[in-house]
Formats: sequence, C-alpha cells, structure tokens
Amino acid sequence: MGQKVSISKKTVLLIHPVLVIGSYDKNEQPNIMTASWGGICCSEPPCVAVSLRKATYTYQNLIERKAYTVNIPSIQYIEQTDYVGIYSGRNENKFDSTGLTAVKSHIVDAPYIDEFPLVLHCKIIHTIEIGLHTQFIGEIVDIQCDKYFLNNENMPDINKIQPFIYDNSSRSYYSIGDKVLKAFSSYKI
Amino acid sequence: MGQKVSISKKTVLLIHPVLVIGSYDKNEQPNIMTASWGGICCSEPPCVAVSLRKATYTYQNLIERKAYTVNIPSIQYIEQTDYVGIYSGRNENKFDSTGLTAVKSHIVDAPYIDEFPLVLHCKIIHTIEIGLHTQFIGEIVDIQCDKYFLNNENMPDINKIQPFIYDNSSRSYYSIGDKVLKAFSSYKI
Repeated sequence: MGQKVSISKKTVLLIHPVLVIGSYDKNEQPNIMTASWGGICCSEPPCVAVSLRKATYTYQNLIERKAYTVNIPSIQYIEQTDYVGIYSGRNENKFDSTGLTAVKSHIVDAPYIDEFPLVLHCKIIHTIEIGLHTQFIGEIVDIQCDKYFLNNENMPDINKIQPFIYDNSSRSYYSIGDKVLKAFSSYKI
Repeated sequence: MGQKVSISKKTVLLIHPVLVIGSYDKNEQPNIMTASWGGICCSEPPCVAVSLRKATYTYQNLIERKAYTVNIPSIQYIEQTDYVGIYSGRNENKFDSTGLTAVKSHIVDAPYIDEFPLVLHCKIIHTIEIGLHTQFIGEIVDIQCDKYFLNNENMPDINKIQPFIYDNSSRSYYSIGDKVLKAFSSYKI
C-alpha cells in the first residue's frame, strides 16, 4: 500500500466533463461559456447539474430564462471551447468571436451550438446556493445529436464524437483513450 | 453542419466520472459503491456532489452519518470498481468480497480504500431530493493522495494515477488518452 499524504482542500477529481452552456441574455443575445463543475445528477427525471459563479454573465441569464443547453464539444473545437471559458459575454458576442453558429432550441428558451455534435436541452428545476458557486439542476427535456455521430443503436458514439476531459490538477484537457471494460460485467465467480 | 436528430430524454453526457463512495452503516461495517452521477459543484468551499438512489445501502448510511469518502480508482482496479457497483452492501461486506482494505478517515465519519490512489474526505452540507436520485453535496474537508502518485508540485498526477471514465451511452469504461491542450491558453490574437 502507498503512503497517503494530505494535499488539503482542493477541487480535484481528475475527471471533469467539459460542458459548454448556452443561454440568452435579456436582449436575446446568445451566449456560451465553458463549465466543468457539473454532471448528471438524476436518472428519472433525467437531470444534469452545472455550477456557475454569480459573476458570470451566464448566471444572470439562467436566473432570468430558467433554461440552458449543454453542448458537448468534439476535440476539433477544443480551442473555441477553451476561449469561451476565458472571456465574458458581457463584453462580446462569443458566437461572433469564435465563428460558431447559434440556433434557438426547439424546446427550451436557450440557444445551442450547431457545430457541436451533442446538445442537452434543459429546464431549470432547482437552484442551490452553495458558496462561490450556485448549482443549477436542469431537467433534460430532449437530447439532440448529429446523425453522423450516432451508432447503429441510434445512440451517440463516443468514438465518433471524440469528446475530451478537463483535469483540474494539471489544468489541462485530455483526450479519451480505448474502451477497457463493459460496465456491469464483473459478476461473482 | 450536421443534421441534428432527437434521441429523447436520456442521461447521456459521454464523460462521467467513476466515484467509489465509502460509508459506514449503523453497525460500523464499511461499505463501498460505485457512482457516476456526480462531480465537483463548488470551488469555495470546495464541494463534490454525488447522487444516489434511495434503494442503495449507501443512501441510508449517508443519511445517518452525514459523511462519505470519494475514492478514485486506478485502471488496475477496474474490475473491483465495476463489482461494487453491481452488488449491495446489504448482503455482503464488499471490502471482504474484493480484498480491498478499509481505513477509517482521519477527519470524517467514513472509511476510505487504502489501495486507491486518491481520496476526498467529505462532510454532507446539502441533501437535495430530485427524483429517483437524491443528491448529496459534500464539503471536501481534506484530500489525500498516495505519495507515489504526486507530481513535482505535490499535485495528483493523472498520468501516474490512470483514472478512467464511464460512458453511459455505450455503458462502458474508457481510459484517458493524451494531454491535448493547456486550459485557459486560448487568448485573443
């Protein structure tokens, strides 16, 4: 066994998703920002949580619109994804800056990114004040995927989509490697 | 641009973390279960969320003890990790079944897994009823890492630890690939 040492209180989990959050401001300007504090939080109703600082432009949009989209980038859009996590929609239209295309969701009051392969359309059902971050729990009312990225069972194909993770310990993005095991397969002998 | 098609309401985000939750039951028996509905949810105080079904043995433990550990497995423990996500601590001691070693946390009322490289020690500060799942928000009061897995800056090294992700679309585990970009590096030209 190794020797465990304390590294104090940190937000290190190694595996963080890369979620690009789409929202409208009060002037109907579409905005996107990258967040990694989040994940699926309920199976029924299907829900995804995302935590934002009050200082972000997206925070106010979510408070007013009660809706957002979660856009999952392919690795080919990694620089645009990184960019929209640095700059604020308060000062620029980030769709214009990145050349990405905003499309109005068919089902919630938020825009999505046309170029990204996978989008979750979410209605906010809980808002939880935690501390520096506020958590928005969104019910996933529909998911859309580009047809090209579906597998034979009409499910999004991780090998085709090529998403990537964020590691907060090294503050870097990593690609996804090989499939190593089918889940729920390790039965008793 | 691709053609977006609806695949209905699902819990698909492609990148889900693999979190092994440690807890004690009322008889001081340590238990572990694998969960993938969770993630970091606040920077200050540092917090991690994990969602559990009421039917799990761990759920009742967390309600009673108000504490848990989050253990991050290396890929060498993938079968044990998968196993403890299938069977219930109601019927067996999963530390005994897997040969893993339970150690009492120095700071919260929960056990951790000695063999796993990284452990977050958490005190529950919010419990949110969502639907099938209940979300437990834990304040991370300490993190411990095996010395061997730290880098030169005393931070957990993702390349040494070799964690893995769960993809709910294919219900499979995937390894982590190469570093592709330093985050927060995509400035305006």
